[in-house]
Amino acid sequence: MTENLVLGKKIAEGKTKIVYESTNANEVILEFKDDITAGDGLKHDVIPGKGYLNCAISAKLFEVLESAGVPTHFIKYIPPNYLIVRKVTMLPVEIVCRNIAAGHLLQRFPVKAGDPLNPPLVEFFLKDDELHDPMLNDMHMAYLKLANRDECDEIRKITLQVNDALKEFFASKGIILVDFKIEVGRDGSGRFLVSDEINGDSCRLWAETEKGKIFDKDVYRKGGSLEEVKNVYVTLYKKLIGQEPKY
Amino acid sequence: MTENLVLGKKIAEGKTKIVYESTNANEVILEFKDDITAGDGLKHDVIPGKGYLNCAISAKLFEVLESAGVPTHFIKYIPPNYLIVRKVTMLPVEIVCRNIAAGHLLQRFPVKAGDPLNPPLVEFFLKDDELHDPMLNDMHMAYLKLANRDECDEIRKITLQVNDALKEFFASKGIILVDFKIEVGRDGSGRFLVSDEINGDSCRLWAETEKGKIFDKDVYRKGGSLEEVKNVYVTLYKKLIGQEPKY
Repeated sequence: MTENLVLGKKIAEGKTKIVYESTNANEVILEFKDDITAGDGLKHDVIPGKGYLNCAISAKLFEVLESAGVPTHFIKYIPPNYLIVRKVTMLPVEIVCRNIAAGHLLQRFPVKAGDPLNPPLVEFFLKDDELHDPMLNDMHMAYLKLANRDECDEIRKITLQVNDALKEFFASKGIILVDFKIEVGRDGSGRFLVSDEINGDSCRLWAETEKGKIFDKDVYRKGGSLEEVKNVYVTLYKKLIGQEPKY
Repeated sequence: MTENLVLGKKIAEGKTKIVYESTNANEVILEFKDDITAGDGLKHDVIPGKGYLNCAISAKLFEVLESAGVPTHFIKYIPPNYLIVRKVTMLPVEIVCRNIAAGHLLQRFPVKAGDPLNPPLVEFFLKDDELHDPMLNDMHMAYLKLANRDECDEIRKITLQVNDALKEFFASKGIILVDFKIEVGRDGSGRFLVSDEINGDSCRLWAETEKGKIFDKDVYRKGGSLEEVKNVYVTLYKKLIGQEPKY
């Protein structure tokens, strides 16, 4: 444990992260676990070092967003696997943005794998394992008191800003941002901040030059060995951070 | 065949209707078939007289909408089972409006059967049997060149006008309009007209006073005998038209 990190009470624990109180009431601390899951949690493994890699990558990508003027919850990265972040009220919604047709979209939308989506498609999904994360439209969002129409527009606007910033950053590393998932939370003043995590678990990332080479959790979803999966996270770390992993 | 009806070339045939050209190039003729289907067409039967009943009920409900100032494709009812309608370019989208939680919504949205939905929920579904009619958001609608954002708003506005007019009419007959499906088409000037059909196949209708009594296709979906199903359509005809069926 890093000396300047004091974990408070555990607030919540999800599949891949734990949220702790901080000594500062406006902040919380995220601990990234080594767990990896897929298919509503039906598939589950532990990959030592994965929490560190994903935490470091998330920190880097939040820095990229902050530099681009996108409001996020990120305050500070505490190696190996902690983020200090602004306390927000999370929206229980997965916000998906797609530049290229892939994944689940292919089963429910008339596009072919690899079709460019321009402008990008933004979709909202309720985080509800029992209902299998159903898609929501703006009227559903309002009915569930998640966000009114203007707020849905604001979330879409932020999501497209995230897309622009990340797409450019990944491109500079030879990586195509196919699609990604973000979550947002409201800070004390009601402003939406990009929150949660952003890394190979929440993005689809393809190599620009090597066809079929990917740098994301699809390696796990598609049955790759845990060593192969770990290698993907290590490779992504090296490409984005520009050095060897430290832990 | 009624003497003042001249059927032109068959343009299209669906599960429950046939579209013919008319002698007037701005019009087409809809023939309502006796077929009844459910579950993406997996369940299929023929109920003699059903085409007549549904056509007459549709004509009545289109008249109700026209009286309320809602733009529809309806021109004239030709008994027993023909509608003369304005020629439109149909949007391959089912537009669903829900006042009370029922049906498929319960499997994909955190509500309980019978929950009031106020304001009503409007949802768009792509007509695509292979993909099982997936839900669309406004960005999907735009990507598929079905309707831009403003047009999606216009369709929602028309749908809520339909809801207001039908809810009031059904209430005057002791019937609760639980939910309904409409389709819209664009006329020559690009204006959206409520098109297709509106009847017990496309609405969920509950008796106001007798709990559990329904007047719609759910009787068929839930395995009622064809006689029971026919009786439901006859009852609905009598309630809405105020007389015994003629054919």
